[in-house]
Amino acid sequence: MAETVERDPLVGIILGSKSDLPVMEGCTSELERLGVPYELKVASAHRSPDRVHEWAETAAQRGLRVIIAAAGKAAHLGGVVAAYTPLPVIGVPIKTSDLGGLDSLLSMVQMPSGVPVACVAINGAKNAAIFATQILGAGMPEHRRAIERMKQEMAEA
Amino acid sequence: MAETVERDPLVGIILGSKSDLPVMEGCTSELERLGVPYELKVASAHRSPDRVHEWAETAAQRGLRVIIAAAGKAAHLGGVVAAYTPLPVIGVPIKTSDLGGLDSLLSMVQMPSGVPVACVAINGAKNAAIFATQILGAGMPEHRRAIERMKQEMAEA
Amino acid sequence: MAETVERDPLVGIILGSKSDLPVMEGCTSELERLGVPYELKVASAHRSPDRVHEWAETAAQRGLRVIIAAAGKAAHLGGVVAAYTPLPVIGVPIKTSDLGGLDSLLSMVQMPSGVPVACVAINGAKNAAIFATQILGAGMPEHRRAIERMKQEMAEA
Amino acid sequence: MAETVERDPLVGIILGSKSDLPVMEGCTSELERLGVPYELKVASAHRSPDRVHEWAETAAQRGLRVIIAAAGKAAHLGGVVAAYTPLPVIGVPIKTSDLGGLDSLLSMVQMPSGVPVACVAINGAKNAAIFATQILGAGMPEHRRAIERMKQEMAEA
Amino acid sequence: MAETVERDPLVGIILGSKSDLPVMEGCTSELERLGVPYELKVASAHRSPDRVHEWAETAAQRGLRVIIAAAGKAAHLGGVVAAYTPLPVIGVPIKTSDLGGLDSLLSMVQMPSGVPVACVAINGAKNAAIFATQILGAGMPEHRRAIERMKQEMAEA
Amino acid sequence: MAETVERDPLVGIILGSKSDLPVMEGCTSELERLGVPYELKVASAHRSPDRVHEWAETAAQRGLRVIIAAAGKAAHLGGVVAAYTPLPVIGVPIKTSDLGGLDSLLSMVQMPSGVPVACVAINGAKNAAIFATQILGAGMPEHRRAIERMKQEMAEA
Amino acid sequence: MAETVERDPLVGIILGSKSDLPVMEGCTSELERLGVPYELKVASAHRSPDRVHEWAETAAQRGLRVIIAAAGKAAHLGGVVAAYTPLPVIGVPIKTSDLGGLDSLLSMVQMPSGVPVACVAINGAKNAAIFATQILGAGMPEHRRAIERMKQEMAEA
Amino acid sequence: MAETVERDPLVGIILGSKSDLPVMEGCTSELERLGVPYELKVASAHRSPDRVHEWAETAAQRGLRVIIAAAGKAAHLGGVVAAYTPLPVIGVPIKTSDLGGLDSLLSMVQMPSGVPVACVAINGAKNAAIFATQILGAGMPEHRRAIERMKQEMAEA
Repeated sequence: MAETVERDPLVGIILGSKSDLPVMEGCTSELERLGVPYELKVASAHRSPDRVHEWAETAAQRGLRVIIAAAGKAAHLGGVVAAYTPLPVIGVPIKTSDLGGLDSLLSMVQMPSGVPVACVAINGAKNAAIFATQILGAGMPEHRRAIERMKQEMAEA
Repeated sequence: MAETVERDPLVGIILGSKSDLPVMEGCTSELERLGVPYELKVASAHRSPDRVHEWAETAAQRGLRVIIAAAGKAAHLGGVVAAYTPLPVIGVPIKTSDLGGLDSLLSMVQMPSGVPVACVAINGAKNAAIFATQILGAGMPEHRRAIERMKQEMAEA
Repeated sequence: MAETVERDPLVGIILGSKSDLPVMEGCTSELERLGVPYELKVASAHRSPDRVHEWAETAAQRGLRVIIAAAGKAAHLGGVVAAYTPLPVIGVPIKTSDLGGLDSLLSMVQMPSGVPVACVAINGAKNAAIFATQILGAGMPEHRRAIERMKQEMAEA
Repeated sequence: MAETVERDPLVGIILGSKSDLPVMEGCTSELERLGVPYELKVASAHRSPDRVHEWAETAAQRGLRVIIAAAGKAAHLGGVVAAYTPLPVIGVPIKTSDLGGLDSLLSMVQMPSGVPVACVAINGAKNAAIFATQILGAGMPEHRRAIERMKQEMAEA
Repeated sequence: MAETVERDPLVGIILGSKSDLPVMEGCTSELERLGVPYELKVASAHRSPDRVHEWAETAAQRGLRVIIAAAGKAAHLGGVVAAYTPLPVIGVPIKTSDLGGLDSLLSMVQMPSGVPVACVAINGAKNAAIFATQILGAGMPEHRRAIERMKQEMAEA
Repeated sequence: MAETVERDPLVGIILGSKSDLPVMEGCTSELERLGVPYELKVASAHRSPDRVHEWAETAAQRGLRVIIAAAGKAAHLGGVVAAYTPLPVIGVPIKTSDLGGLDSLLSMVQMPSGVPVACVAINGAKNAAIFATQILGAGMPEHRRAIERMKQEMAEA
Repeated sequence: MAETVERDPLVGIILGSKSDLPVMEGCTSELERLGVPYELKVASAHRSPDRVHEWAETAAQRGLRVIIAAAGKAAHLGGVVAAYTPLPVIGVPIKTSDLGGLDSLLSMVQMPSGVPVACVAINGAKNAAIFATQILGAGMPEHRRAIERMKQEMAEA
Repeated sequence: MAETVERDPLVGIILGSKSDLPVMEGCTSELERLGVPYELKVASAHRSPDRVHEWAETAAQRGLRVIIAAAGKAAHLGGVVAAYTPLPVIGVPIKTSDLGGLDSLLSMVQMPSGVPVACVAINGAKNAAIFATQILGAGMPEHRRAIERMKQEMAEA
């Protein structure tokens, strides 16, 4: 979507691994459909912690308003990002081949007091996009309207 | 907190049952500490669906920006509210005496495509308050600053 | 089955998604085999709540005696329908690719006091048809006899 | 409730163990509140199978219309009863001290094709009573009206 | 194995469904390898309870010494057989496509006080054969020796 | 029970820890009631492996016919004993404070091909005694009769 | 233990929260019994990430040889520390009141390729101390001897 | 890697079954990449306990410094080895086709006080190799440097 790439990104998507990209295309395509500019980063909380740290710490000043973090297994990425930013962090627990994603879900959602990560469903990439847009819509009427249009279309489908 | 009650509520909290109130006091007290005005409603998605329906459908026009829904067991409240509002809905799965809240968590977080409910931890009342404030902070600088102050204090504690 | 479509439906089947149809064919074929007229509706509790609401609220006056609700993941459909009708609601939790249907099962079966949804097994479409017929049989002898014949045949098989 | 004991019972409640009685008082008191006459039997599918067998096999001819079976752990009672009666069998999985009732729930709900047991929540005694009344209401208007009154009161509560 | 079929069977194998046969061939082939004569019956505790009842009740007088019961999902077969026989009953929980066999395992192993079913692993057909032979070996030296030979070969393999 | 201690033990009970004794009194008292002489040993598969090894390896020649092994958490005791004896080994998974005994159960029941441990329920001490007696009864009529008497009494209770 | 505090610590213990201290006293007392000098730090990966980061990054140059990280719920502490140090990190998943510690365990143990955290049991504080000493013993004979003495005493106990 | 085979092995890998070899090639190839000499043994704790016993008991005197034990289902191998050696034992729970490896994980990680097995993730073969090298690195600088190089490369990848 040409126009979105020219506007400054409002949503930052971060993935723990390149292997999460196919699932997360459900997120990027939905953001595009909803007209929300985004940036996407692949960086592991464990293998390249400094890159995650820097990306998270500068997210707000780069103009991002919401973060979406997708990771599987011991999915710490959302929590690590949330530790370094005042922005809301949405977690997408990635399905795993052994435990079905229950490990990813619990690792993301059971955050301790003080540092929330709000999770969508296992592999809930599209819903993360919608929720990010709803967050934007809390302060920016055009994003609220995009959600209202989407809900209207869904109800009519 | 006197000043918050006089401003229009920005966050709507809805509980499936009065028995969830003790847990959710962790939410209201945190919202008060963060200076966020809220309203609180007890209504069951199953026992009084029309009240939930009306409350949800009018939430946005009443000026609310974010919803927090807390429920236990087959915790449908968040999903039902999300079906009727364009606002972001944060789910708080309430701990249950038999399955520990795993039922509440899965019933809330595993929402189908199109209608997200973003969940915090089981009984994560305080984090729901923080996340709601982070959402407000995405569009309103004073709420962003409240989060930054809280994170600062937490790091120093 | 020509004769069933001409009689007024006694069982209303509602599915959360078209993707549940292949599983639920086990339900419709069994109802046909047992001679029970039914109607079938696809509507999502979350994406098209008003359609579900209206369908459920008018179910009893349309002559339905039993509802079968099939849904997966955070399977709220049964609960939402049960909230709007005095009719008995049978839940069919649909198997999910990540958690095997444990999420669907807990989301359906763990209903709070006052609004039951009685669940059959994960993907238990055929058993939902039999149970619906047993319910009809509680008041109508011909349906009781259909069940007795079926049990006889099963024992002899 | 004097008047109910004088009418012939319509609902048969069977418990696997006397220790399930305290939980199931939630069922009997709700049936009384809804004006549904019932009988109650304690018999184990494993320790006294012949008594269960006979009770189940004669249930329909004794005039019962619905069965409620409550049991814990490897909760076979519902399935064993369902094998011997054409009546609908509602299962109440009893909470267990080690696995919380997940064992009871799976043992009851995962019935094979042909012989359904429809389950309510773990310890869902009251809902079993309501569901039994809804089943009676499918054929008998006065029970339907009792449910409608109950739903009305619940919504107003 | 010609010679085993001519001797009276000592082990009775009962399966809840024909679909369990492929898994249970691991049991029959191991019994043959260990020289233990057996009989095999397919009968469902739910669909043909009278046949199971009769088979179990006459098992001891027919000369059987051990029962092996294999079933999946709400696997009541072992418990139902154990209710009607003084013989030891070994349970083989069959793997299920949705919950992996956790449902079968809990339905079999969590038997209430007084009526044990001793379970081997999910799909543990071969081990059920070995355990049955160990039971025979407790009273009959030739079966004990067969186990000792098998353990010897295993250790050398 | 005076007479049992004077006869040679037929059942060997081994516990992983002294803390399992209160649960396992349900086993010893039932064996006494059924008139089965036993010996009892406390030894850990991990802390005192040589004692377990020796006890298991000499069990058969000491005249034992059946082993009952009780352990909690990563409950290897049954498997370790089974590795060193041709006798049948019954496992009693002990309830744990964190996972309710699911860990003990899976650690005991999921034995690999060739070396079965047949498990009773979590904390199923009494049933282990009954099952051991059933095993003895497969070869010794007096033990079979003890089981038949017990079943009779249970059915009459 | 006076002598241990005067030697430079070899083991660094880090806890996510002060509330984990009572459990982890089982770790410190065992290290003292084994004669291993340690340091202990309370710092949250989420609330005070910079302190954790600095502590982990300098752990090796401060002379530490092994890290023990204890945390509950979405227990990221071990992973975060492991990201910043070449030292081996032992995880102690802390029991939780809702899910029993299954969340802590999966969050710690299911680490992605490249950055291991090796976990002991839920609340396995004492075993973490023993394992840390075994690690030291791999390179330093006196620690190996301490382990050998402990095993000897355990076997004799 | 020619040079590693000529040096004395420092890491002993033991597998419960040949079928675990494909998974554990991720371990041996990583050890080779990190320059750590190893030996590999296939022996079952249950089918060939004496071989495991002897291998474990002589491991330290053969010069090994660390053990890696991989097994599935009721995965006792790590615990059995740990009972017979003062060396640190790393457990690799192997994924299972029915329960996904949750059985293997709990059977390995939930070790009782006194005899730890520290587990990596389900099928975490590569991480077991890295952790073993980190253990060697606690006492031998060249192995620490190998880990530091690996972490550097990972961060740059």
